[in-house]
Amino acid sequence: MIDPEEYQVSSFIHRSTKQAPSRNISHFLIGRPLETADEAHQTIGKRIGLAVFASDALSSTAYATQEILVILAGAGTMAFSYVFPISIVIVGLLAIVVISYEQIIHAYPNGGGAYVVAYDNLGRLPALIAAAALLIDYILTVSVSVSSGVAQITSAYPQLFEYRVLICLACVVLITIVNLRGVKESGTAFAIPSYFFIVMMFVMIGTGIFKLIAGSLGTVIDPPAIEHVGNEVAGITAFILLHAFSSGTAALTGVEAISNGITAFNEPRSRNAGITLIWMAVVLGLLFMGISFFAREVQTTPSEAETVVSQLARTIFDGQGLLYLFVIAGTTVILILAANTAFAGFPRLSAMLAQDGFMPRQLTYRGSRLVYSYGIVSLGFVASLLIIVFQASVTRLIPLYAIGVFLSFTLAQSGMARRWWRAGQLKRDDKESQHATSLQYEKSWFLKMVSNGFGAVCTAIVMCVFAITKFHDGAWVVLILTPILIGIFIFIRRHYTGLAHGLSLERYGEPPPYLGRHRVLVPISNVHQGTLAALRYARMLSDDVTAVHISIEPEDMEKVRRKWEKWGRGTRLVIVDSPYRLFLEPLLVYIEEILATRQPNETITIVVPHFVPSHRLYDALHMQTSELLRRELLARPGVVITEVPYQIP
Amino acid sequence: MIDPEEYQVSSFIHRSTKQAPSRNISHFLIGRPLETADEAHQTIGKRIGLAVFASDALSSTAYATQEILVILAGAGTMAFSYVFPISIVIVGLLAIVVISYEQIIHAYPNGGGAYVVAYDNLGRLPALIAAAALLIDYILTVSVSVSSGVAQITSAYPQLFEYRVLICLACVVLITIVNLRGVKESGTAFAIPSYFFIVMMFVMIGTGIFKLIAGSLGTVIDPPAIEHVGNEVAGITAFILLHAFSSGTAALTGVEAISNGITAFNEPRSRNAGITLIWMAVVLGLLFMGISFFAREVQTTPSEAETVVSQLARTIFDGQGLLYLFVIAGTTVILILAANTAFAGFPRLSAMLAQDGFMPRQLTYRGSRLVYSYGIVSLGFVASLLIIVFQASVTRLIPLYAIGVFLSFTLAQSGMARRWWRAGQLKRDDKESQHATSLQYEKSWFLKMVSNGFGAVCTAIVMCVFAITKFHDGAWVVLILTPILIGIFIFIRRHYTGLAHGLSLERYGEPPPYLGRHRVLVPISNVHQGTLAALRYARMLSDDVTAVHISIEPEDMEKVRRKWEKWGRGTRLVIVDSPYRLFLEPLLVYIEEILATRQPNETITIVVPHFVPSHRLYDALHMQTSELLRRELLARPGVVITEVPYQIP
Repeated sequence: MIDPEEYQVSSFIHRSTKQAPSRNISHFLIGRPLETADEAHQTIGKRIGLAVFASDALSSTAYATQEILVILAGAGTMAFSYVFPISIVIVGLLAIVVISYEQIIHAYPNGGGAYVVAYDNLGRLPALIAAAALLIDYILTVSVSVSSGVAQITSAYPQLFEYRVLICLACVVLITIVNLRGVKESGTAFAIPSYFFIVMMFVMIGTGIFKLIAGSLGTVIDPPAIEHVGNEVAGITAFILLHAFSSGTAALTGVEAISNGITAFNEPRSRNAGITLIWMAVVLGLLFMGISFFAREVQTTPSEAETVVSQLARTIFDGQGLLYLFVIAGTTVILILAANTAFAGFPRLSAMLAQDGFMPRQLTYRGSRLVYSYGIVSLGFVASLLIIVFQASVTRLIPLYAIGVFLSFTLAQSGMARRWWRAGQLKRDDKESQHATSLQYEKSWFLKMVSNGFGAVCTAIVMCVFAITKFHDGAWVVLILTPILIGIFIFIRRHYTGLAHGLSLERYGEPPPYLGRHRVLVPISNVHQGTLAALRYARMLSDDVTAVHISIEPEDMEKVRRKWEKWGRGTRLVIVDSPYRLFLEPLLVYIEEILATRQPNETITIVVPHFVPSHRLYDALHMQTSELLRRELLARPGVVITEVPYQIP
Repeated sequence: MIDPEEYQVSSFIHRSTKQAPSRNISHFLIGRPLETADEAHQTIGKRIGLAVFASDALSSTAYATQEILVILAGAGTMAFSYVFPISIVIVGLLAIVVISYEQIIHAYPNGGGAYVVAYDNLGRLPALIAAAALLIDYILTVSVSVSSGVAQITSAYPQLFEYRVLICLACVVLITIVNLRGVKESGTAFAIPSYFFIVMMFVMIGTGIFKLIAGSLGTVIDPPAIEHVGNEVAGITAFILLHAFSSGTAALTGVEAISNGITAFNEPRSRNAGITLIWMAVVLGLLFMGISFFAREVQTTPSEAETVVSQLARTIFDGQGLLYLFVIAGTTVILILAANTAFAGFPRLSAMLAQDGFMPRQLTYRGSRLVYSYGIVSLGFVASLLIIVFQASVTRLIPLYAIGVFLSFTLAQSGMARRWWRAGQLKRDDKESQHATSLQYEKSWFLKMVSNGFGAVCTAIVMCVFAITKFHDGAWVVLILTPILIGIFIFIRRHYTGLAHGLSLERYGEPPPYLGRHRVLVPISNVHQGTLAALRYARMLSDDVTAVHISIEPEDMEKVRRKWEKWGRGTRLVIVDSPYRLFLEPLLVYIEEILATRQPNETITIVVPHFVPSHRLYDALHMQTSELLRRELLARPGVVITEVPYQIP
């Protein structure tokens, strides 16, 4: 267990552990503890990488087209013909974003999320803005993907529509538990459903093309009613088109996933990651354009009751046969997987923020399954809340989504543009150290700066269009929430620095001596083996031990007294009457009184016996006296509360 | 603070406290701690008693008539004419129940709930059945009363109908908080709304009678649609009538409240309580018959959208004027008060069960506000759950209600009948001690036995009618839940007796000696004032102290080492490398290793520094290392984890 190289310098011992302990506690729900696996040895190739990182991006094709149609419906069904042109513009934007991210992947081979890139090149505030935007978007990824996944199921089985919120919550709970157990992003588990989805989508689009050429492609039979169809007279305004475009940009969410996960790739990792990104962009572009094209061609209608993908599949495959079910199943599974990727990203980003002091430190804590448990549970909780509030409606969630994505896109690209400009100012062989990387002269800095700069401008424009057109639909929530989150980050950081200052040993005089009186109190409700174990421990701590019995029933008092005479071995026992059958209050009165008369430098320890029942379940049947005491006495200096566990043999 | 009569026998000190401590911790939501008021001095008279204890019973007139109509609607609107005859039968039943309870009040002057009476006269199992039934009914009282109260509001303001579940939940939360603060059932607060309700109801019925005589009473204008109107051809069967009767018996819920609260009355308390019970029965009977009579007369229809009381009030008062609003407000408030009485009854009964070992001991714990906090919170939680599941529908909740009430009525009356029979068998001056009371010869035992026996038979028949006619509507839930609850009671009791046996000192040999090695470990993440406080405490416990630093960042290790050289005063420091940035696992490996090599009779204490931030809020920002360690090491004998609180100056 212990490395033999162990050396001792004066009173220091330094040792290295290589292994995690094997433990016996049954982790029923979240599994047995994992070994501390060496993550570096578990890298993946391009094919598996595409499956692992592309699920988020590819899955957005399942709802992006539909959300464009929802907005166009506001200008009447005639406006639906704009869905394909708008989709082409979005694919153009995708190309710009992907080119920009190619450069980030090569500049940040250790993983370059928007937070890292912005911190490195723009400073702390932009980094915090990017972080807030990303956290919000991770949460929304879970809510939107799960809601959309369940919408696919309820399209195939409409009788389940009533229970959609419950099904969504069950999915979130399941994903949360799976992630607490620790999913290895180990490829095959992800690869099969991802490729199944891609294949099924291309089969659907291919069949559609074939039928189109053969002239046998019909239109949707018995399409669902459109919920909010607008007045045709109002006409198609530029605002409607921009609004529809904004909704469609949801297709771009998840593109940044690869740049965050570069370390997972085989060497040469930047190159492998870059190639995977391009593959992903091509597949995403083709699928999105294909779906948008046929959505118009077969005259699908946007509806909460049946998704566009479902309408498309049953029209192209002539009814709800096996191929239809395959498309629905593939779409559902990839959407759930997309939610799963947020469960990897959110805790990791939270842990980075916590490391830098902007979020609670506990978020850096990895449990026995080597996952950031607190982050995972928080994400599951907030995403569930959103699903309940928005009743699992993708259309109502979408306006909150994507604005954060474009904010972080813009910050990352601007950071890169600034980086290239700086690199251009350096001399040939100079190196400059940044926050996370070092910078050196780059020959083609101008071209690179222009390409990242152009990306930044484009995404910034999209973000503004988004904020304006979707402001009323819900984007305002995000615009308010982001500064609040940043405020919280700064507040937390301030608390930690204040604390470090308060605890600092600079200007700290000579500490008090080790000597001092040590009184020990042992509250007992009865005399039994547990009491004796606590008493034994108390006598180990100090010779000044007093047992305290709060007498609620007078008969009990006599019993306790008789037993104490036999088993107390001369330890002083104070019996305090409690005429009102209260337990805590008389004990506190007694303790307060002892505190009031104590000497300077006197410490009081309260030793509380604590049964450890044979099963956790029984914990609910035992009073946590020590917890109650701790809550009441926490603010009193020099009082320590100790639980002595007693395992019943 | 301390009584001067303090005596010491060998090592015993016995003291009495008279007062609760005054403390400074701000109890923001639940208020400052109350003094331990002497409850016995706060008794009430008949008039206030009526207001306090009758709200539950009287409030049921707000929904009982409507629930009869809902069932009758199943046989077509013609069947509505049966509502008045059915109501008269129910009032007859009320008279029987009240006569029986009169006798309980005189036999149990210290309060005789069904649990106490059944335990005293029938034994443990019947007592547990009564307790289970009562607990379920207390929960349902909250759900039904709050739902019905909110239904009154949404009758007056239909635009709120959509938000009824939320409004209900807000009410439950409010009542829970008020009860955690501790409501003194101190009369006026209850008296005003209760009498306001009674007066407004009589004003409404009086106006109705006047108009009826004057011939100016119309019918409901624009009545709400009936949701489930049946097929008239099916005809009025006996089943429908019995079914409607069962629903109407909801009017009898709450009648037992006075017999539980006899101790709250002025002396002679049994007499005062008994007279109050008769007053209450008279008011309840009159109101119920009046409402049922006019409900038929003005042709109200049962509907979730508008309550019968609302239809009645606006018809009798010619529209939604001030008098209408007064009736609605009075009804709403008394329904909320009825829910409030369950918040007094449920925790008190739970505490009695916990005292007898059938429920978790914590339920006997009274917080600083002298209320059974755990019971109050549990009740609020379960009632909220029911409201969500049943979407605040009184009609859907009613089938679960009342069956428990009649079960406990039956058990209480049977118990009393058995008691009188026993009393009849005694000799003139004999006394026999029961569980809670003593029994003596009673001259008119036969008459009393017959009257209680008749009550028991009547309520038993009603219970069976209820169970059969309402089985499908939801009564089966209660019929399944009751035995499950009883099973849980017995299971808990078995755990406690098993534990007491396991901890017992009989057949316990000589305990191990007090001597033994005591090793102390102090895990430190950094060297600061908090660390030094923990170290000082550790040195007080033992000379064998080892500090442990888990090194996550190599630079930090050097810093810790340098600081330790200056501040560690020669205490041994072990530095453990953690290459995977884990904190808990390497620490556990180290502790496990020490445990593996320890001597027999060696105790290990782990002293963890714990900051106490200036405000509770900041707690969320600190890792609870001691909690994590405790969870992992609880099962290991001889390991104690101690938190040393350090208050930042």
